[in-house]
Amino acid sequence: MAKELKDLTKRSVDYSRWYNELVVKAELAEQSDVRGCMVIKPYGYAIWERIQQSMDARFKDVGVQNVYFPLLIPKSFLSKEAEHVEGFAKECAVVTHYRLKTNAEKTGVVVDPEAKLDEELIIRPTSETMFWNTYRKWIHSWRDLPVICNQWCNVMRWEMRTRLFLRTSEFLWQEGHTAHATREEADQRARQMLDVYADCVENVMAVPVVRGMKSATERFAGAVQTYTIEAMMQDGKALQNGTSHFLGQNFAKAFGVQYVDKDNQLQYPWATSFGVSTRMMGALIMTHSDDNGLVLPPHLAPIQVVIVPIYKNNEELQKLDERLEAIASTLRGKGIRVKYDNADNKRPGFKFADYELKGVPVRLVMGGRDLQNGTIELMRRDTLEKETLQVEGIEEYVEKLLEEIQQHMFHKASKFRDERIFPCDNYDDFKKRVKDGGFFLCPWDGTEETEAKIKEETQATIRCIPFNVDQTNPGIDMVSGKPAKHKVIIARAY
Amino acid sequence: MAKELKDLTKRSVDYSRWYNELVVKAELAEQSDVRGCMVIKPYGYAIWERIQQSMDARFKDVGVQNVYFPLLIPKSFLSKEAEHVEGFAKECAVVTHYRLKTNAEKTGVVVDPEAKLDEELIIRPTSETMFWNTYRKWIHSWRDLPVICNQWCNVMRWEMRTRLFLRTSEFLWQEGHTAHATREEADQRARQMLDVYADCVENVMAVPVVRGMKSATERFAGAVQTYTIEAMMQDGKALQNGTSHFLGQNFAKAFGVQYVDKDNQLQYPWATSFGVSTRMMGALIMTHSDDNGLVLPPHLAPIQVVIVPIYKNNEELQKLDERLEAIASTLRGKGIRVKYDNADNKRPGFKFADYELKGVPVRLVMGGRDLQNGTIELMRRDTLEKETLQVEGIEEYVEKLLEEIQQHMFHKASKFRDERIFPCDNYDDFKKRVKDGGFFLCPWDGTEETEAKIKEETQATIRCIPFNVDQTNPGIDMVSGKPAKHKVIIARAY
Repeated sequence: MAKELKDLTKRSVDYSRWYNELVVKAELAEQSDVRGCMVIKPYGYAIWERIQQSMDARFKDVGVQNVYFPLLIPKSFLSKEAEHVEGFAKECAVVTHYRLKTNAEKTGVVVDPEAKLDEELIIRPTSETMFWNTYRKWIHSWRDLPVICNQWCNVMRWEMRTRLFLRTSEFLWQEGHTAHATREEADQRARQMLDVYADCVENVMAVPVVRGMKSATERFAGAVQTYTIEAMMQDGKALQNGTSHFLGQNFAKAFGVQYVDKDNQLQYPWATSFGVSTRMMGALIMTHSDDNGLVLPPHLAPIQVVIVPIYKNNEELQKLDERLEAIASTLRGKGIRVKYDNADNKRPGFKFADYELKGVPVRLVMGGRDLQNGTIELMRRDTLEKETLQVEGIEEYVEKLLEEIQQHMFHKASKFRDERIFPCDNYDDFKKRVKDGGFFLCPWDGTEETEAKIKEETQATIRCIPFNVDQTNPGIDMVSGKPAKHKVIIARAY
Repeated sequence: MAKELKDLTKRSVDYSRWYNELVVKAELAEQSDVRGCMVIKPYGYAIWERIQQSMDARFKDVGVQNVYFPLLIPKSFLSKEAEHVEGFAKECAVVTHYRLKTNAEKTGVVVDPEAKLDEELIIRPTSETMFWNTYRKWIHSWRDLPVICNQWCNVMRWEMRTRLFLRTSEFLWQEGHTAHATREEADQRARQMLDVYADCVENVMAVPVVRGMKSATERFAGAVQTYTIEAMMQDGKALQNGTSHFLGQNFAKAFGVQYVDKDNQLQYPWATSFGVSTRMMGALIMTHSDDNGLVLPPHLAPIQVVIVPIYKNNEELQKLDERLEAIASTLRGKGIRVKYDNADNKRPGFKFADYELKGVPVRLVMGGRDLQNGTIELMRRDTLEKETLQVEGIEEYVEKLLEEIQQHMFHKASKFRDERIFPCDNYDDFKKRVKDGGFFLCPWDGTEETEAKIKEETQATIRCIPFNVDQTNPGIDMVSGKPAKHKVIIARAY
């Protein structure tokens, strides 16, 4: 067995360490020498690229147009929306100079004091301010609405404690920014984009999510309403996969964006924003993977099928090459991503462990005996089940199996999650059990006091007011004893 | 005629102003409120996205793997390669703080003096240093080579004079960074990537290019050899569309990257880097467009065919809708990007001018008379030729025509360019004619002195030592009178 694999900490021993090790060992990403900033490696980026493309295709289907706005934002912009600046001021990177020069002694590089900026610029932590400052020039009449723009870009939030993919100072994301003539249309768009996210996360990443609304405390800085999709990791903790925000007229007013409506009246447009990021990679890894390494859903796997020959000598290898390259070619013809690995500088055992670590969904192995018997060994990564099959028709079998694995992974994760959603209206009971993970469905009186007390005493937070739960009779708040306003999902979270 | 179009300055009046106006009027991009940084608008971004995807597909065909490296680079990295820091130090944005806070009087936002960074960071102007600092961790053995990575990202070079797409402080690009076991393999990769660029620029953008090598003066900072593709704009000036660099062992040595070869000896790997940027949008616009607006090659056009009905009343519109939507649907079935524009808030004349301005390759127009006669009017944007055709079979005709337009645009640009490549070995003659544009193919003695004199006296630069020109008998340098080492292309450039 490969050394890398033997070293992987088991989930039962230390889930957090397992995650950190897996991201590095599977060559997804690593820390760079810049504090809190990661390097996304080829294998990790190939997965991200597929997530990104799946999302982008769905965005285009619902009329989203891609654009690119500047990385740097004048700091005065940030302060125009009062809540927004409070939310982001403490984690912004600030650019104060624009020039370096080598100093006289050539000992290094020093800043030229004359090249100080008149107004300091921040590296975007999010771009509501930049978009709305520009929308002032774009939106004049009701004919200019709606504006539905999105950008795929990097953003920067200076985090003190970082973890690869889950929390990094720089990350990749998309940020959508829309403007609408009516409150209803804007709110509808925010909800629609949440559905687009959920569709992609569930059907491409095979990660089941709960859709809901954030409490006021957990809202995006400057939002009237924040919608969220929350997934459950294997340790029972929640991970927020994406959010969309109904921003009301806050940014329109802050940046003086007004349009003339059909009745010739000046109006402020209504706004939304929405985003998903490389954080989703963390959800993908922690939902499916196991003690042997990554488990990737076929829709995202850079390699969907790996084929390995086992041979005693060159003559046998030649025969296997001929047979297996034909299978690889047929599979590729079906649009399946195949790697045929007959490299002779690694033992089969090493290859097996390595492709398990990398989460390749299907492994096909053929030896000399198989060649004679017309058989082939197949292993599926999600269940680790092996079977020996007739090589005749293997391509059709694999094609079907990939789709079955995709479905199975989603259902397995859904079952795991559903078994850990606990209705609970007793606070003592909650306090005892919440540390073991799970989503607790509890009545909440809607006050910040109760929410703060729960967080302080249990480190758990209100993840969302779920859409799919009957809210007609929420019951009695388990902390305050007052009538509840909502049933909410409470959990510890990443 | 639409106001926007009437206002467009003619190329013959002021080519530079024509370009600036066209970029804005065709809604490709605009200046942002951050000095030198642009906003790429939906229409412009849709074109860039197609260029980007065409390049990326070609990269993958030649084994390039995408990655993502940090935006910020410790300033000490930059100074490790002596020539590199000289090339970039004066145009770097410097991050010195990482926190803002609202001040006591709430008058705005001020920097918290305690949040000053220990080591200042620069926003990447290019990432050789970051990649090679990381490659030290990736490359240990000959088995780890080659490394062939690329990232699509934003970079920042603080420019004093900026122009949309052509020269902006922030721009989008890709930067490839490779490491190889031998000098030959690295140099071969740099040349291969230049061919990949040329293939995409010529066949997708329909922009003909000259491939060649830069003079030492014009090399990338830190490169041993720089290869370039140079295109000729309609004013006869050159525009560098992309470059690839053979970097020797400079960065490997600067960052202490060594590997053990097959003979168990420590060796420094050989490097390349290569990049193309949103600057290519400038080349696209200036190669093809005319006084009516953009002319887009069909392979890149976000809308390839626009269909406009002309009607007297609703009854007629309904009949036209039925016929034209069927045509649109058939065209879409062929993978053609079609817009059917029956919006009634704009006059046909306005629509025609607008789609001309936006460079839509084919326009189909049908009126009530056409409907009766079974005819349709077609205009191709590249030649502005109109013809009335039988509507029967129009879809097949359009499909073929799009490919014909693509070819025609390339051949037209090639002819224009070829007619303006002037062999020249008389410096007085050169000085008289160079200001009128064109590529001058001249014998050069290979000295910096001659090169500097030409630049000072004529503002023209050596664009490249072209690959496709016989270099066996370069002749006599037209400035120094000494024996020439190369025939070079000299031109004024963007």
